[in-house]
Amino acid sequence: MAIIHYDPWQDRFKLPFGAVLIESIAHLNIDVIAEKVLHVYLVIHKDGEEIQYHEMTNQQETFYSCDYFFNFGTGLYYYHFEIETIENKQQKTYFYGTTAKGGLGKLYPSQAETWEYQITCYKKAEPAPDWYKKGIFYQIFPDRFAKGNGGVISPKKNTFLYATENDDPLYVKDVNGEIVRWDFFGGNLSGIKEKIPYLKELGISGLYLNPIFEASSNHRYDTSDYMKVDAMLGSEEEFTELIQLLHANGIHLILDGVFSHVGQNSRYFNRNGNYGETVGAYQDPHSPYFPWFSFTDYPNDYTSWWGIKDLPEINKENAAFQEFIFGEEGVIDKWTELGVDGWRLDVADELPDHFIASIRKRLESFSDKVLLGEVWEDASNKISYGKRRHYILGDHLQGVMNYPLRNATIELLTEAKGPEEVANSLTRLYENYPRAIFNNNLNNIGTHDTERILTMLSNHLKKLDLAFGMMFVFPGIPCIYYGDEAGLTGGKDPENRKFFPWDHMNPDIYRSCHKWIDYRKDNDVLIEGDLSFFFTEHLFGILRRYQNNYVAYLMNPTNYPKKVNGNLIFIAEETPMIKEIRRRFSNRTIEENSYLLISSAQKKASIEQIQRSMLEND
Amino acid sequence: MAIIHYDPWQDRFKLPFGAVLIESIAHLNIDVIAEKVLHVYLVIHKDGEEIQYHEMTNQQETFYSCDYFFNFGTGLYYYHFEIETIENKQQKTYFYGTTAKGGLGKLYPSQAETWEYQITCYKKAEPAPDWYKKGIFYQIFPDRFAKGNGGVISPKKNTFLYATENDDPLYVKDVNGEIVRWDFFGGNLSGIKEKIPYLKELGISGLYLNPIFEASSNHRYDTSDYMKVDAMLGSEEEFTELIQLLHANGIHLILDGVFSHVGQNSRYFNRNGNYGETVGAYQDPHSPYFPWFSFTDYPNDYTSWWGIKDLPEINKENAAFQEFIFGEEGVIDKWTELGVDGWRLDVADELPDHFIASIRKRLESFSDKVLLGEVWEDASNKISYGKRRHYILGDHLQGVMNYPLRNATIELLTEAKGPEEVANSLTRLYENYPRAIFNNNLNNIGTHDTERILTMLSNHLKKLDLAFGMMFVFPGIPCIYYGDEAGLTGGKDPENRKFFPWDHMNPDIYRSCHKWIDYRKDNDVLIEGDLSFFFTEHLFGILRRYQNNYVAYLMNPTNYPKKVNGNLIFIAEETPMIKEIRRRFSNRTIEENSYLLISSAQKKASIEQIQRSMLEND
Repeated sequence: MAIIHYDPWQDRFKLPFGAVLIESIAHLNIDVIAEKVLHVYLVIHKDGEEIQYHEMTNQQETFYSCDYFFNFGTGLYYYHFEIETIENKQQKTYFYGTTAKGGLGKLYPSQAETWEYQITCYKKAEPAPDWYKKGIFYQIFPDRFAKGNGGVISPKKNTFLYATENDDPLYVKDVNGEIVRWDFFGGNLSGIKEKIPYLKELGISGLYLNPIFEASSNHRYDTSDYMKVDAMLGSEEEFTELIQLLHANGIHLILDGVFSHVGQNSRYFNRNGNYGETVGAYQDPHSPYFPWFSFTDYPNDYTSWWGIKDLPEINKENAAFQEFIFGEEGVIDKWTELGVDGWRLDVADELPDHFIASIRKRLESFSDKVLLGEVWEDASNKISYGKRRHYILGDHLQGVMNYPLRNATIELLTEAKGPEEVANSLTRLYENYPRAIFNNNLNNIGTHDTERILTMLSNHLKKLDLAFGMMFVFPGIPCIYYGDEAGLTGGKDPENRKFFPWDHMNPDIYRSCHKWIDYRKDNDVLIEGDLSFFFTEHLFGILRRYQNNYVAYLMNPTNYPKKVNGNLIFIAEETPMIKEIRRRFSNRTIEENSYLLISSAQKKASIEQIQRSMLEND
Repeated sequence: MAIIHYDPWQDRFKLPFGAVLIESIAHLNIDVIAEKVLHVYLVIHKDGEEIQYHEMTNQQETFYSCDYFFNFGTGLYYYHFEIETIENKQQKTYFYGTTAKGGLGKLYPSQAETWEYQITCYKKAEPAPDWYKKGIFYQIFPDRFAKGNGGVISPKKNTFLYATENDDPLYVKDVNGEIVRWDFFGGNLSGIKEKIPYLKELGISGLYLNPIFEASSNHRYDTSDYMKVDAMLGSEEEFTELIQLLHANGIHLILDGVFSHVGQNSRYFNRNGNYGETVGAYQDPHSPYFPWFSFTDYPNDYTSWWGIKDLPEINKENAAFQEFIFGEEGVIDKWTELGVDGWRLDVADELPDHFIASIRKRLESFSDKVLLGEVWEDASNKISYGKRRHYILGDHLQGVMNYPLRNATIELLTEAKGPEEVANSLTRLYENYPRAIFNNNLNNIGTHDTERILTMLSNHLKKLDLAFGMMFVFPGIPCIYYGDEAGLTGGKDPENRKFFPWDHMNPDIYRSCHKWIDYRKDNDVLIEGDLSFFFTEHLFGILRRYQNNYVAYLMNPTNYPKKVNGNLIFIAEETPMIKEIRRRFSNRTIEENSYLLISSAQKKASIEQIQRSMLEND
C-alpha cells in the first residue's frame, strides 16, 4: 500500500499558492512512498477540455515534481494525480484527488470517482485604486439612513410613510403576496450629507449606496429612469453637491448599477403610462424600447426577473440598450462624470461577461474607478445560466461582494461549524480567487439582502465584536451595513431595513466597531498581507503576514474560557514567524466570546490599549 | 262580492296620520260596500298580545268607524279588519289588511294570511332643541378632513401615514384579512378649527364627529381611553378651544359615543399591556375591568363585537361600566360639561334600552342636548337580539340616522325603483315613526359606512344635485358627509374615507350643495312642514306643507325630458293647496335629471334665481 500526500495549501507541495496568472508556471510536488513507483502523472484539463497526462519526476527524496505551464487560456483547470506502482509484483494505479474540505487530498478507487483540484487561471492582476484598497466602506440603503432638510420630504403619491423612525418595516402586500403599495421612511441625500461628520468620526472612507435613480419602490431596484435621481432622495444638484462634499471629506462613493431589469412603470416599459412624454415598450410595439424586452405574448406576458412581473428583464444583447448604458454619454458616463468613484453591479451573474467587460472598459477611460459585482457564492467557479463565468479573471470585475465571509463568520460564531471547517472553507475561497480580486472583495457581515448580523448572533454583543473583528482583519475592504454599528436588529427583508436609530444608538456596539476601524487603519498588514488560518478544536485564528509584519487574531467563539495549549494548527508551512506566534499565544487564556490580537508592530498601540482609552474617554 | 277600501294614508280613513301618542285616540274609517253588512270589526292587538275585536259602526254613507283608545302601553299595535256580510243568503267574512306597498290594503282569504297594519304608539313627543331642528349638519371623519398646525402631527408608532392627501385609502391586512397596521392621513382637531371659516361659508351649523377618543385605529371605534382625546387629534385643551370656537361661530357639536365595545389594547382590556399604569381585564382576572367583559376561556376567548377579536364587547349590564359611562363625572358628564351638544350612539341596537334611557336621563340634566342613535333600518319595528326595541318611543333617542332615506334616494336616482315604489316606502317610514322622531332624524345620503353618493350615482353631477335636493327638502336634519360637497368619490370603506380634496374641490358640486343649504335656510316649511309624496310613472315629488305654506320638489330622475301632464298622483287628500300645486306644475317640462321646485313663499328668491346669482358671482 502506497502512502501518498499532496496538499496545495502548503508551499512545499504547490507554488504559487492558489490561482495562477495565464502563461505562468505552477510548480507541483507530490509525496509518494511506495514499494516501487513506475510513473507519477499530473492529470490535468482545462474546464470542459481534454485531459492531459504530465509525467512528474522524482526530484528529491520521495517527492515527484513537475512544472505546469498554463497556456490553454484563462479559466479553471482541474487536476488530480495518478500513480502507477508495482506492489507484490502486481501493477497498481493510485488515483489521488481533493476532498470537500480542500487541502490534503486522498486516494480514490478510480479516475471517474476522483475529485479534482481546481486552479483558477486569470488573465491579469486587477489592482484597484489605492483609495479603494485602503477603504473603510459603509453601505447605505438611502430610504433608511437619515432625513435631511429638517425632515421635509416630497413623497410619491399612493405610498405609505412610516409614522416614526422607530417603526418596524412592513411590506404592504395583497393576498397573492404582491406589493400593493410602497413604504418609505423618507431618508434622502441631504440626510446623508448632514451625516458626513458622523461618518467621518466613525472612520468611513467610502460609501456604497443602494440604488438612487428614479424608481417606484423604496429599494429602487426597479429603475424608472437611469438618468434621474429619484425626486424623493433629492435633485441632481443635491447629488452633485453630496459627491463634492464627500470627496472634500475624503469619502469616495460607489453606486449600485442595476442593469439586468427595470421597473414595469419605468420610462422604458411604461406599463401604467406614467411617463406621458415617452412611449414605452408595453404601450406600443413601435416604441424605441420595445427591443429591450422579450415579450412572449404582447403586451402582458414578458420575461421578467425571477418571474416578478414588476421587473421586466432587459435583453442585454440589445445594442441600443448597451449604447445607452455604457456608450458615449450613457448612464455610466453621466454619473461617473459627476464624480461617482465606482459601481457595484447588481446581479452580476445575470449580465453577460462582455456586458460587464464593456462597462469596465468604459470606466477605464476615467481614472481610479472601481467595478464590483454582486455574487453570492465562490465567484471563481460560478455557473449561471449554464455558462461558466469569467468575471474575476481579468478585465471584468475588480472584486465581488464577499458573502462567503459573512456565512463563515456566522457559522463560526454560532458554532454551527467548527474552527477547522471554517478555516478550510475560507482557505478554499482564498485559493480559488485571483489574489488581487480577493483583496478587492467588498466584505460584509450583512447587507440589505441578509438578516442583520446582530440578530444572527442572537443579540450577543461580544460575538458581534468578534464578527466585526473578523471582517476588519480579513483581506478585502470591510463594508459596514448602516446601523450594524448602532445596534440595529432584524431578520430578512424588510426587517433588515429599519431606519437608523439616531436617537437610541447602542454606544457599546459603536465603540466596538470604531475600535476595529481604528485598528485596521493602524495596521497596513491588514491591507497588504497574505492570509492564512490557524485553529484548535475550539479556537479560530486569522493570520495576516506581509514581509516581517503580521497580525494574528485568535477568537474563542464558545461560551467558555479556553486556554491555548500550544495546540494551534496552522494552514501554512511552519516558519520562524509562526513559531513566534505560537509562543506568544501559548498558555494564554481567552475568555468566552473574546479574542486575543497580537501583531508584530510593537510601535502600535495594542488593541487593549485602544479599548481602554476609548472607555476612559466616555 | 263586497267592495272594501281602507287607506291609512288618507285622512278620511285614519286620523291622525301615522304614529299615535299613548292614551290618545285614533279615528279609523273603513269603506264597505256590500249586499248586507252584519258586522265590521277592527281586529287589533298589541305586539305579542291577545287580539281584540272592536265593532265599527256605520257612521256616514258606506263608512264604518271606530275610535281606538291606545291604553295598552307604548309599542307597536297591529290591526286589520274583518267584515261579516250576507251575500246571496250566505254569511261571508272578509279579511282586509295591508300589503307590502302600504296605504290602500286588500282582501285576504283568512285571518292567518292577513297582513296587518302597524300603528306605533309612543310615550311622548321628543322635541329636540331648536338649534338641532334648524341645523345643517356636517359629518367629519377626523383623520380625513384637515391637518392643522401646518401639517405637524404626532403619529403613533408602527402606523403608516399616507404620503399625500390625494392617496387612495388602503387597509394594510395580513393574509387572513386582519389589519396589521393602521393607516393615517393625519387630520386633526386643529385642522377642523382652521376650517371653521370654510364650514361657516358653506352654511354649516352643526358638526357630527366620528370618534375622537384615544384609540389604535384611524376610525377610533376601538376606544382605548374614554377620558382622553386621541393625542394624534390633539389635546383636551385643543378640543375645549375647538368647542368654544365652534360655538362662537354658531356651530354645535355632536360626538360619537361608542359604548358597545372597546379596543383590545384599551386601558380596560389592555391586551398588549400598553397601559402600564393600569391592569386590564386581559392581564388579570382581578382587574377592576374584568367584569366589564365576558370571557369564554380566559384570557384569549371572549365575546367580541361581530366576532372581531380586536373589539372586546362590553357587558352593558355591568353596574360599574354603567356608572363609568353615565354616572356622576362619567364619560357623558365629562365631555358634555366641556360643551359637547349631543351624542350619536354607535350601534344603538346593541345597547340595552335602559342603557340608552340612562344616557338620555343624564343628558337631561344639561340643557338643550340631543341624543341620536345609529340604526340602519326602520327604527320603529326593529328587532335586535330577539327583542323589540323601544328607543324611539320616548325618553330614549330623540332621532336616528336616516339610512332608509339614502337608500330611497339612490334607488330613485339610479331608477332601481320607480317613483311610486319609493314614495310608498318613504310614506311607510313616515307613518311608522313618531313625528318628532322623524323630524329629528339625522338625514344622510352617505356616511363613513357607505359608498360615496357620487360613486353610487356613477359620477352624474345632475343626479347628485337631485340627491342633495332630496336630503334638504326632506324632514329631518340634513347631514353632509365631509367631501360629498367637494366631489369625493369612492366605494365602500376605505374608499369612502379619502382625505378632503382641498386642492381640487369640484366647484360645481360645491355650488349645488351650497344652493340647497341656502334654500333650506330660507324655507322654514322644510323644518316644520308635514311630508307627503306625489309622482307620475317617471317623476317623483316631495311635498312639504305647514299651514298655508308649502314647498313642492318635483324631480325627473330619468335621462329624458318629461312633461307634467296633470297626471300627478298625490299620497294625500286632495286639498285646494294640492290643486294649486297641480296647476303650477301642469304642462311644465322637466329636463332629464333635473327638477322643478315651487313654493308658496313668493317673497323668497326662486331657486333658479339663487342658482343664477351664484353663477354670476363666480
